[in-house]
Amino acid sequence: MDVVCLDLEGVLVPEIWIAFAEKTGIDAFKATTRDVPDYDELMQMRLGHLDSNGLKLADIHAVIGTLAPLPGAREFLDDLRQHYQVIILSDTFYEFSKPLMAQLNWPTIFCHRLEIAADGSVTDYRLRQPDPKRASVKALHALNYRVFAAGDSFNDTTMLSEADAGFLFHAPENVITEFPQFPAADDYAELRAMIDEAAQAPRE
Amino acid sequence: MDVVCLDLEGVLVPEIWIAFAEKTGIDAFKATTRDVPDYDELMQMRLGHLDSNGLKLADIHAVIGTLAPLPGAREFLDDLRQHYQVIILSDTFYEFSKPLMAQLNWPTIFCHRLEIAADGSVTDYRLRQPDPKRASVKALHALNYRVFAAGDSFNDTTMLSEADAGFLFHAPENVITEFPQFPAADDYAELRAMIDEAAQAPRE
Repeated sequence: MDVVCLDLEGVLVPEIWIAFAEKTGIDAFKATTRDVPDYDELMQMRLGHLDSNGLKLADIHAVIGTLAPLPGAREFLDDLRQHYQVIILSDTFYEFSKPLMAQLNWPTIFCHRLEIAADGSVTDYRLRQPDPKRASVKALHALNYRVFAAGDSFNDTTMLSEADAGFLFHAPENVITEFPQFPAADDYAELRAMIDEAAQAPRE
Repeated sequence: MDVVCLDLEGVLVPEIWIAFAEKTGIDAFKATTRDVPDYDELMQMRLGHLDSNGLKLADIHAVIGTLAPLPGAREFLDDLRQHYQVIILSDTFYEFSKPLMAQLNWPTIFCHRLEIAADGSVTDYRLRQPDPKRASVKALHALNYRVFAAGDSFNDTTMLSEADAGFLFHAPENVITEFPQFPAADDYAELRAMIDEAAQAPRE
């Protein structure tokens, strides 16, 4: 009885904020957790840039509506869901992820929430809890599931540590170098083979 | 940030064992948790009847392959998943649920596992843990989700109690009478309205 937990951005879909930076031409939005490991620091910076540029939820939606999953992501996920229970663990927000979840056939996703004012401006963000990806793996362990996990960045590493097997996927060199304990894959077939191999191991 | 937990059999699909009894003509398989609240007692009885009738996993699969979700279930679930995260909590087994999950567009399901011998006979069953539906709601609460839940039978009531709001759906009169604290619905539109109303309540 196994659950696969996958990061979203960089693993199944493009980095949403980077796409937003490119569409708006505001380079400051290009920073991700790859650049700023402290997530709150990163988000406060993003909210500040939204406000100072007068950008509202509708503007973000307009960009996300133009994004598609990474090539092969939908097929990878469709097949994976026939053999494992899959839960996406992401530090994005439901307000952002919805158009992408539609394109991924509505997998279950645990993420966060934005606070939106009556005029549509983004006033704050609500993290569901501290270290949410690790907490989700712990919760699945409490339900007696084995957990295999894959992610690309700093905010995934506690999830990968907590999982029964953790894999880096599409990770940049600095993350691969800093976390040599996690096997790294760069295409979906390779990741799937790693997951299937982990699932073959006898249960403890 | 809300999760809806739904029972499977009786709520989204027919009772699998009852369908199996009808196809095989063996009435003993008609007993469900509605009749025998002790789940282990019920399962040991079922395993005994499988063995004494020489019925193997392939025979069960042949029956499940002929089942379809309840009328309207797929549409209810498809729309629900656009507005909430949904997890199916069931006391069925992955070996049984898979052909039905395919027809329901692969929602996440937490259930149990059968042990199958090399010759395809069903030798035992593995419950993932005791009181699994309640444990799942507790795990979601540990992730700071509000949980709304719906089920039809005795094995759902601890889930309904643990949830922030619990509803009976397609429940027989004896369950409704014994658990008057749970509002009861009989069609999907009514259940959806109850869930949406619960979601409107301010978060504590």
